[in-house]
Amino acid sequence: MITKSEVKYIQSLGHKKFRDELKQFTAEGPKIIIELLNSPSILLKALYATEEWWNVNKDVYESLAPGMAIEIKEYELEKISALSTPNQVMGIFHQPIYDKVTSFNNCISLMLDGIQDPGNMGTIIRIADWFGAEYIIASEESAEIYNPKVVQATMGSIGRVQVIYDDLLRLIKAIPAVPIYAASLEGKDITEYKKITEGIILIGNESKGIQVPLLQSATHQVTISKRGKAESLNAAVAAGIILSHLV
Amino acid sequence: MITKSEVKYIQSLGHKKFRDELKQFTAEGPKIIIELLNSPSILLKALYATEEWWNVNKDVYESLAPGMAIEIKEYELEKISALSTPNQVMGIFHQPIYDKVTSFNNCISLMLDGIQDPGNMGTIIRIADWFGAEYIIASEESAEIYNPKVVQATMGSIGRVQVIYDDLLRLIKAIPAVPIYAASLEGKDITEYKKITEGIILIGNESKGIQVPLLQSATHQVTISKRGKAESLNAAVAAGIILSHLV
Repeated sequence: MITKSEVKYIQSLGHKKFRDELKQFTAEGPKIIIELLNSPSILLKALYATEEWWNVNKDVYESLAPGMAIEIKEYELEKISALSTPNQVMGIFHQPIYDKVTSFNNCISLMLDGIQDPGNMGTIIRIADWFGAEYIIASEESAEIYNPKVVQATMGSIGRVQVIYDDLLRLIKAIPAVPIYAASLEGKDITEYKKITEGIILIGNESKGIQVPLLQSATHQVTISKRGKAESLNAAVAAGIILSHLV
Repeated sequence: MITKSEVKYIQSLGHKKFRDELKQFTAEGPKIIIELLNSPSILLKALYATEEWWNVNKDVYESLAPGMAIEIKEYELEKISALSTPNQVMGIFHQPIYDKVTSFNNCISLMLDGIQDPGNMGTIIRIADWFGAEYIIASEESAEIYNPKVVQATMGSIGRVQVIYDDLLRLIKAIPAVPIYAASLEGKDITEYKKITEGIILIGNESKGIQVPLLQSATHQVTISKRGKAESLNAAVAAGIILSHLV
């Protein structure tokens, strides 16, 4: 059973303002929930699930502190779910607190200059996780990672990739030098690059690309050569292609 | 100005049933509209746009037959638009009729085994256009390309890539032999393949992958090697990565 005040609380987490204030977020569906429960960096606050889900996840029930595991009815799940088709289970999690990163040396990172679409942001986090990128550095106007649409699109990878929001130009000046590979339409062909083990891959906004001063701070410009006529590639697809060639 | 019956007609095109019956579809926004107006295979039925858009596109106005160019107010556009933020112009187009394709030799094609998400379908059409793939062969349960969400995600590429819906197993048996490269988690690493100029790249459903009999008909299995922990990659991202390595 779920109380009225719990419903209100969970619904408030649909808004960025409250997510920022409460430092929590929601996630839904069996796949993502299991991934987040296994994440060392993300802590659970409460888990709401239908009888059907608890029946096959008795071990989860037994591992949780009293009050954290709540059985609810389908119609109750519908009230709190952000999905058009609610999917058995919803969790409230604490936003992880990471140590401040002061260097991006000796690893692969992604830098996002204004990725606006939550689906793209989530897909990029999943791609970073697939290719073992350690950090995602996003400009302050990029989509917020705890937006429910982003969380769902990460498919659980949100628990394994650290996302840092910052002023990108300021950050680049503040950190020790590291090669920056900018996705651009006028760079060297991606197939001409050798594999790398260190560097930041810079991806621009869906329609405006990378802002000029940031592009100028890149040490390399990388182009995915075109054989057809499309004007551009989706930002997440471009990130995936560049990582697959460079890493 | 737009009449009540026109509003009703355009709204009906939001439903697959009417799109199938009328063999028409809608597209919105300056970028896509200009691309579709320039497409040799897609014919315009009517174009509804605000004064602002017609002012900068006088040449379009003059090139259209009487009655095809209609000036409407913002609030009228809001009535017919499927977008949360209507964007100046909306077109009704005839679905193109292509000759039956009997061979996929000497070109690159994509085969989609049940891509369900309209955003993924649109993004894949855009990727195919970028890499010069000629055909997309989609299983009958795949997302319909004239769904407004698909049309928008193609960013205009829908006018340059031919999409064929068919029973995939039946089709493979009926066409002359052509190499089939299936995206799979247990194939040979993508970087070990040489560039190809002929072949079908087979991509599976977002959660179920490629159905077994279809996978067995593939001549090659291709894997995007993983360095991190994500369980899978987004289907459109996988299609982009495979095309970027093989083509």
